[in-house]
Amino acid sequence: MTRAAVFGAGSWGTAFAQVLADAGVDRVTIWARREPVARSVAEQHRNPDYLEDVDLPAQITATTDPGEAARDADVVVLAVPSQTLRDNLQDWKDLIPPQALVVSLMKGIELGTGLRMSEVIEAAGIDRDRIVVVSGPNLSREIAARQPAASVVACTDIAAAERVAAMTATPYFRPYTQTDVVGAEIGGAVKNVIALAVGMAEGLGYGDNTKSSLITRGLAEVVRLGQALGADPATLTGLAGVGDLIATCMSPLSRNHRVGVALGQGRTIAELLALPHQTAEGVKSCRSVVGLAARNGVDMPICQGVTAVVDGRVTPEQLTGALMSRARKHELA
Amino acid sequence: MTRAAVFGAGSWGTAFAQVLADAGVDRVTIWARREPVARSVAEQHRNPDYLEDVDLPAQITATTDPGEAARDADVVVLAVPSQTLRDNLQDWKDLIPPQALVVSLMKGIELGTGLRMSEVIEAAGIDRDRIVVVSGPNLSREIAARQPAASVVACTDIAAAERVAAMTATPYFRPYTQTDVVGAEIGGAVKNVIALAVGMAEGLGYGDNTKSSLITRGLAEVVRLGQALGADPATLTGLAGVGDLIATCMSPLSRNHRVGVALGQGRTIAELLALPHQTAEGVKSCRSVVGLAARNGVDMPICQGVTAVVDGRVTPEQLTGALMSRARKHELA
Repeated sequence: MTRAAVFGAGSWGTAFAQVLADAGVDRVTIWARREPVARSVAEQHRNPDYLEDVDLPAQITATTDPGEAARDADVVVLAVPSQTLRDNLQDWKDLIPPQALVVSLMKGIELGTGLRMSEVIEAAGIDRDRIVVVSGPNLSREIAARQPAASVVACTDIAAAERVAAMTATPYFRPYTQTDVVGAEIGGAVKNVIALAVGMAEGLGYGDNTKSSLITRGLAEVVRLGQALGADPATLTGLAGVGDLIATCMSPLSRNHRVGVALGQGRTIAELLALPHQTAEGVKSCRSVVGLAARNGVDMPICQGVTAVVDGRVTPEQLTGALMSRARKHELA
Repeated sequence: MTRAAVFGAGSWGTAFAQVLADAGVDRVTIWARREPVARSVAEQHRNPDYLEDVDLPAQITATTDPGEAARDADVVVLAVPSQTLRDNLQDWKDLIPPQALVVSLMKGIELGTGLRMSEVIEAAGIDRDRIVVVSGPNLSREIAARQPAASVVACTDIAAAERVAAMTATPYFRPYTQTDVVGAEIGGAVKNVIALAVGMAEGLGYGDNTKSSLITRGLAEVVRLGQALGADPATLTGLAGVGDLIATCMSPLSRNHRVGVALGQGRTIAELLALPHQTAEGVKSCRSVVGLAARNGVDMPICQGVTAVVDGRVTPEQLTGALMSRARKHELA
């Protein structure tokens, strides 16, 4: 009997719970912050706020009690907003069984500290050989619909990565193991910011040439930052790097993309933040990405520009114009 | 007074003629194979078969006489189908002024010889320091609409690349110079084949996770082949590599993408080849790409699979299924 806990009832946490159940995990318990969500998942096998039209497998239950969710879990999956993870772990760290693997689905850099999500988990006292990062081109709604997707499962201990791969392999979800945790996390943290820029260009009426150029230069920013932090460039041009970047930047299902489009069309950040269930991680993480880049002496003009738009210092039009007219004679200079 | 000749009145040749005119080239003469096309461009500034709703600049004229087109040209642009280039150059090589730069817009590998387009031009007696390759995320219709795009302009002689960059720089078209000609050509040759595979997946109903995974693995094939031929990996993850790949794979404007979608929806290659003005370069070049890969000991499962579909040996469904379920434990293995 294998047991998994998923902390966070957002769309990715919920879809990943389905993957675990479909892969043969016997009991998957979702921890939800709000009682009505937990009750709906437990009793009706539905998540009313996200993936509202998906019937969840019978092995999935839910609770608002973190201790009940974590009890006897072989694997504890963390899928909470990246900027609340540290506080959440203060409450949960003693509830996580000492042998359990801890899987991070979160994509972002902690504000203030510049830490990746796996580093925040490690700071809560979890040994790094138990921390497994899952990242790839994984739009939740498509995974919930059991559309084929591939993903990187990374851990400094390859045996731990392989255990999680075995617990998630289904005909529609294909995990590829990796030991490059930094590479697996950096692409995911930066892509939401790039997706905002690409969305803005789309909202302003630019076409696929412009968007592809922005994605290409965005990839260069991911590679520069990743290499400065010790990532393998091959990871950054793999599923968790360019793969996730493309999916997030091109799909209308991506929240960051959608928020970027709305900004390009003239909506304000304040208006967009007021909408329910529309958290665009990139809006929160752009400052921390730019801060991490600055600390490491890495130039990230797209991420810096998105931060300036989010702060209200430049308009999406000024940003896109500046990026497309940037003087640069030699491509690789 | 600068003069340019553009051999080929297809959509990219025509749009590139507009770029040259907008960048200040005083006279641009398009060579068209068919008399009605030449007359329409010369008299009505319209290309009726491609970009039919675009008003071409007044500096552009057209002729069916290759000698008239090439006379006194400072730059001769070649934009003909890649498999007819060798025969065309037999007729044209003595007409090209000896000081003129020769620009290749063509993307493909010659069947039988496995040569890149710049190598076919060199085989016709043009010195390689005069051959300039232009490649990037450049969907013709968007360029004709003066949507911002960036492109690589590559030549073994950087001064020649810079001359072509100066002759093409406009507010909407931004050339980046490069000396890595192999890198600039390989991405363009392979991307049409990958776009067919991605289109097939889309036609079969697969979503953005699947398509992004295919593009990511397609990029790995581009990088492997390019490196085996001596390309700089950074070029392959730049505009002419991943940039062009993304634009071609994601845009509904890409012919290769459209043909792939139609194949995925159950149309046959024979039906599609019978449609006018719908040449999908990838259908012709997949065999030559696979042949080049085999000669260099490079594994390219997506390109091999597309060739098998084009040859009628497997269905798009079998190909997509095989690619998404391919056993591979470690991502970078």
